[in-house]
Amino acid sequence: MEQPNTPAAIPRQTLTRLPRYLNYLHGLDPVPEYISATAIADDMGLGNVQVRKDLACVASGGKPKRGYKTTELIACLENFLGCSDTVSAVIVGAGKIGRALLTYERFEELGLHVIAAFDENLDAAAEEDGKPIFPIEKLEDLCRRLNVHIGIITTSAGNAQNACDRLIAGGVRAVWNFAPVHLKVPDDIILQNEDLASSLLLLSRRLSTVL
Amino acid sequence: MEQPNTPAAIPRQTLTRLPRYLNYLHGLDPVPEYISATAIADDMGLGNVQVRKDLACVASGGKPKRGYKTTELIACLENFLGCSDTVSAVIVGAGKIGRALLTYERFEELGLHVIAAFDENLDAAAEEDGKPIFPIEKLEDLCRRLNVHIGIITTSAGNAQNACDRLIAGGVRAVWNFAPVHLKVPDDIILQNEDLASSLLLLSRRLSTVL
Repeated sequence: MEQPNTPAAIPRQTLTRLPRYLNYLHGLDPVPEYISATAIADDMGLGNVQVRKDLACVASGGKPKRGYKTTELIACLENFLGCSDTVSAVIVGAGKIGRALLTYERFEELGLHVIAAFDENLDAAAEEDGKPIFPIEKLEDLCRRLNVHIGIITTSAGNAQNACDRLIAGGVRAVWNFAPVHLKVPDDIILQNEDLASSLLLLSRRLSTVL
Repeated sequence: MEQPNTPAAIPRQTLTRLPRYLNYLHGLDPVPEYISATAIADDMGLGNVQVRKDLACVASGGKPKRGYKTTELIACLENFLGCSDTVSAVIVGAGKIGRALLTYERFEELGLHVIAAFDENLDAAAEEDGKPIFPIEKLEDLCRRLNVHIGIITTSAGNAQNACDRLIAGGVRAVWNFAPVHLKVPDDIILQNEDLASSLLLLSRRLSTVL
């Protein structure tokens, strides 16, 4: 979706309502794939026409009868309001690699913040050098509330697709996958694979050609 | 250096001496950059001409007045004797990333063996899930004795070049570098860089173009 307007061209009353739409959308649980202006108006106690006009200021119209794709509408609102966060990330899978990445100082030096990890095998919150690790059940809710759009998967291969699905349900738009498995993601999700074992295998093969 | 001969063409007496040359070279400490047939003959109590003939069976001649490049002569002997190991690796830098890689099960699944780690801040041997971690002073000797040719650097940026130099002195021919620093290596050393922070930064930048 394009952003057809700049803040200067938008009525002041609309500007004050835009954060409320974003709050409302962030609070949806589960997040529907599509949401209509009518549904938003009903839930928020606003006029149908007003909602349509307000949202038209930041997002081009949704599909007939279905409405807006929810994640895209959230992204448009966040981007417009200057709150799209492209430097915060969460980790799923708090094994050794996950914990090492959770506390890897070099990320902070480059302005990247890995703010929490989630794990299947936790009953209560834990921590690693002061960084929180939560049971995986908290993932979707916390990702939405923390407004995180990058997810790092360091689970086993068998748990990776579930981790990926939960991240996307939580609003993540970019996935860095360390699990040695092909992940299925929607077209609008950025997927970057990092297979450490394949990298070492490549080095081993290069070595064998010269020894 | 090429290998001008196959085992069938080599005198039996020479074949029995080749492992002795390799043992001798593995025992050198420090390892000289070049070594002459004369020096080998003197140290091993063999005839100068005999050593030249023996080594000519597995390695083309060294440089005049300097002799053989020691690491290349070792590689030629190992390769000829079928003992060149292209799947074993050691780690320098036993922080979280280093320890995670030391015990990363996926490596073993692909037939790759990370057999030990070394660290600057250790006074005595330690371990991580049964894998040994040694003080860095043991590095060159153990690498040579274990016949390891792959080194993984997970030190800080400031310690990485020293780690790299020690690995090469220990006979390593391929380096996988996780430290965010440009390493200087001789032309015959394979260097493969893995900058995790740059990878996450790249993902962040890709995300910012779509949000």
